[in-house]
Amino acid sequence: MSTANQIWLYDTTLRDGAQQEGISLSVEDKLRIAQKLDEMGIPFIEGGWPGANPKDVQFFWQLKEQPLTQAEVVAFCFTRRPNILAAEDKMLQAILAAGTRWVTIVGKSWDLHVTEGLKTSLEENLNMIRDTIAYLRSQGRRVIYDAEHWFDGYKHNPDYAMQCLKMARDAGAEWLVFCDTNGGTLPHEISQVVKEVVRSLLEDSATIPQLGIHPHNDGGTAVANAIAAVLEGATMVQGTINGYGERCGNANLCTLIPNLQLKLGYRCLEDWQLAQLTATSRLVSEVVNMAPNDRAPFVGRSAFAHKGGLHVSAVQRNPITYEHIEPELVGNERRILISEQSGLSNVLSKARSFGIELDKQDATCQHILERLKTLENEGYQFEAAEASFELLMREALGQRSEMFQVKGFQVHCDMLKWTDMPYSNALATIKVVVKGEEILEAAEGNGPVSALDNALRKALAKFYPEIANFHLTDYKVRILDGSSGTAAKTRVLVESSNGKERWTTVGVSTNILDASYQAVIEGIEYGLLLKSTAKTAVTSI
Amino acid sequence: MSTANQIWLYDTTLRDGAQQEGISLSVEDKLRIAQKLDEMGIPFIEGGWPGANPKDVQFFWQLKEQPLTQAEVVAFCFTRRPNILAAEDKMLQAILAAGTRWVTIVGKSWDLHVTEGLKTSLEENLNMIRDTIAYLRSQGRRVIYDAEHWFDGYKHNPDYAMQCLKMARDAGAEWLVFCDTNGGTLPHEISQVVKEVVRSLLEDSATIPQLGIHPHNDGGTAVANAIAAVLEGATMVQGTINGYGERCGNANLCTLIPNLQLKLGYRCLEDWQLAQLTATSRLVSEVVNMAPNDRAPFVGRSAFAHKGGLHVSAVQRNPITYEHIEPELVGNERRILISEQSGLSNVLSKARSFGIELDKQDATCQHILERLKTLENEGYQFEAAEASFELLMREALGQRSEMFQVKGFQVHCDMLKWTDMPYSNALATIKVVVKGEEILEAAEGNGPVSALDNALRKALAKFYPEIANFHLTDYKVRILDGSSGTAAKTRVLVESSNGKERWTTVGVSTNILDASYQAVIEGIEYGLLLKSTAKTAVTSI
Repeated sequence: MSTANQIWLYDTTLRDGAQQEGISLSVEDKLRIAQKLDEMGIPFIEGGWPGANPKDVQFFWQLKEQPLTQAEVVAFCFTRRPNILAAEDKMLQAILAAGTRWVTIVGKSWDLHVTEGLKTSLEENLNMIRDTIAYLRSQGRRVIYDAEHWFDGYKHNPDYAMQCLKMARDAGAEWLVFCDTNGGTLPHEISQVVKEVVRSLLEDSATIPQLGIHPHNDGGTAVANAIAAVLEGATMVQGTINGYGERCGNANLCTLIPNLQLKLGYRCLEDWQLAQLTATSRLVSEVVNMAPNDRAPFVGRSAFAHKGGLHVSAVQRNPITYEHIEPELVGNERRILISEQSGLSNVLSKARSFGIELDKQDATCQHILERLKTLENEGYQFEAAEASFELLMREALGQRSEMFQVKGFQVHCDMLKWTDMPYSNALATIKVVVKGEEILEAAEGNGPVSALDNALRKALAKFYPEIANFHLTDYKVRILDGSSGTAAKTRVLVESSNGKERWTTVGVSTNILDASYQAVIEGIEYGLLLKSTAKTAVTSI
Repeated sequence: MSTANQIWLYDTTLRDGAQQEGISLSVEDKLRIAQKLDEMGIPFIEGGWPGANPKDVQFFWQLKEQPLTQAEVVAFCFTRRPNILAAEDKMLQAILAAGTRWVTIVGKSWDLHVTEGLKTSLEENLNMIRDTIAYLRSQGRRVIYDAEHWFDGYKHNPDYAMQCLKMARDAGAEWLVFCDTNGGTLPHEISQVVKEVVRSLLEDSATIPQLGIHPHNDGGTAVANAIAAVLEGATMVQGTINGYGERCGNANLCTLIPNLQLKLGYRCLEDWQLAQLTATSRLVSEVVNMAPNDRAPFVGRSAFAHKGGLHVSAVQRNPITYEHIEPELVGNERRILISEQSGLSNVLSKARSFGIELDKQDATCQHILERLKTLENEGYQFEAAEASFELLMREALGQRSEMFQVKGFQVHCDMLKWTDMPYSNALATIKVVVKGEEILEAAEGNGPVSALDNALRKALAKFYPEIANFHLTDYKVRILDGSSGTAAKTRVLVESSNGKERWTTVGVSTNILDASYQAVIEGIEYGLLLKSTAKTAVTSI
């Protein structure tokens, strides 16, 4: 591969990403993510800080047993401590023990952090940078130098910041990376500083070292900041999958990579690897156990979702009318949302995506549209409940076979919290007909909805054992007519999963239990339909 | 106020924001958001497209009854249809009927959209722009012209795009707004195009009209795009609270405003209004019923959260070491993730807003803070439930007199919809102690929550006849822990009204009935407190 226009991607999901509030990765989690990143063709994967915690030591150890195919796994560490020899620093010994070819060394660039944070002299900080890099080079390691607080440091004291950077270069770092640690720098400032730095580096050397950028998102411009640096000559971008990271996160590689490759003509990944971006984003969100961001650029579930008849017919005639890139290039897909403003063209294209062939002339098509409008007037909403819409469509086409029929249920709740003997209980009884057999079941739960859910599962388990794998992943309630208070109509959206796929169903009623139950029942039915037809659900995890 | 460096904010949460998948706003929701934006000092609020749907017609109608204090509410509409007179276009008549001073007219700039989308000639599109604006001007309206698909159109056919823009200017539009409809333009392209446009506008006029920018976030750079346009001379920025909008959303005003005002020295809001940004972000996310984004720049819960000993001690010695701005400037707060110790000033300022005088030295103050943090850890959220927070505060101060005590309740629901004799019923029994008397009451309702609500009102009516005037105006449910499905913790927000004032209360439980009931009980208690103290509620209607 030619290196003209090449951008080297550097993923730090496993270190900086793991700093995010609420994320805690096991060694297994880290290995799974690393393997996926390797498969997608990320050349540098920062694995952690061996020596800082036992988990990171173990991760690097495991990698020796199961090495990655292509990616370089990089160990991360600070410069040596003040006033000791590099060879005597235990942290650096741990880094060498990790056995990576590449090491990233982070050092101070901002004088304030040297004197107030490290409590050492400006000169000793320069020595620390020099000694650490020189020592690692002498031990056969290749070094990426991460200049912490680069932009703030440069603004406060450009001379000292440049001394630090040149020290790293002269000691043998092959990459100099500008880290916007506090994340508040804006793109035009990045452009200007990088331009000045390049000019200064050229003053005492004919060739410029390779440059990189490591932005944080506190100003909401991390991706734009990375692009600004690349346009000024940086060839390494450091970020995380889904932008995970402490505070407001790091630069989101899932946004940055397609911008660089599809819009600016840089090479980051092979095309077939870029097409794995959406799957990678969703896998990582699953592993770190954070709900995926539906609105994420390029890879979000809503990123290419269209509603409104005019938009839909235009985008189907010519996608560039309302899409900035082809969703397939990043492994995402166009979605036509079903809403009140839907026309016939929405219904047709939706049917196609469910694998149902419909003819515009067909009376069924008009029938579905009318049924849709009636239900939406009653408060149903299918935009976010595509599984319910598919069931509706199959019913109109006579393709919905009855898997079970709920005859009725009773729920009883006691809540005696404020008495001398606190007591609270929720009990549901349900009658279901499955394959001609009438089943009566009862179950308890944390509340009335979970009691009902449990009772239904109990009743169906004998006939459909796969139900054991289904679980509810989200449950949302919305009142539809504010003025009627608790007597108002309620809409419930339920998201279910079988561990591989997710789907959403809807229920509407003045009774919150009834609305919940409609959605729960359809969620189970849709899961069984997926299983029986081996079809693919609306959203793969 | 001097207009030097002034940026005019234009919020389109109520129109473009409402296009987001999963958001559906009632007229009451729209009014509540508009009032908050008005209070925060947003000068232009786009209210919707009157004529496109009955809800928007009603919204503008209601605003005539309850006008905002300062903000201009803007009606949005397309240019007239091809080949008719502007005065004959029903859409434009609906716009005039909305009775706003300002109208935003969106028109095509991209030749492809004229010929393929509108299916008319390039010349007729120019006529449509001219006629529409001229007609509205003749009817006394002031016009903002929104140039749809500006950047894509300009890239494909700059001459035609400029003809459209100049036509809008010459017809009397006071603002020309560049809309990046597909949202894929990058900041450096925005800079370049705006620079060229300004040059071209200066060719045939000595003064440049006022310019604006309306970015979408498909490339993940909407905020940076707005900043790029402002740096080239745009003085209006259009965006939404929390970046809501279709696909990947609009420019997030909660990110954009502090960047412009705190970093670039522009004036958007008064300082005390900027300090309401975090509260506004959270209120709007509650009203639209979307979980707030903890990682959101400036206003997210994690935006100023620090973990790790080094960061924490550094940031406590000198905040600029790891914070790009002071969190208080946007009404947010620093959070120290190991040892929580902030928020005292929040409690003090909130107490003041309730008319309660508290001393920082007072032990009660620390006690309230601890209680608040405990409850927030359990899932309570008081940003949108200030009535519950006031009750909590009064309890700590010994100022909460017990008006009634609920000993317990039972709820029974039958739902036999699918049997031969459909039958559905919800029945609640409640035991309450009021003024020493034990009352047992039962009532039916549309569902379990309304049955409980009815039973409580029946039990209290004899003692507090004013309860007859109370009614519930909104009821929202959110699941807090997605992975546990129907067994997860649920947070319920209940909004109540006495016809003059509105207030919101909160309840949290794994049992949805219990959570609902906590909120309903506090709602009634707060209403009685209002009556007894003749104080003013948190929000006047």
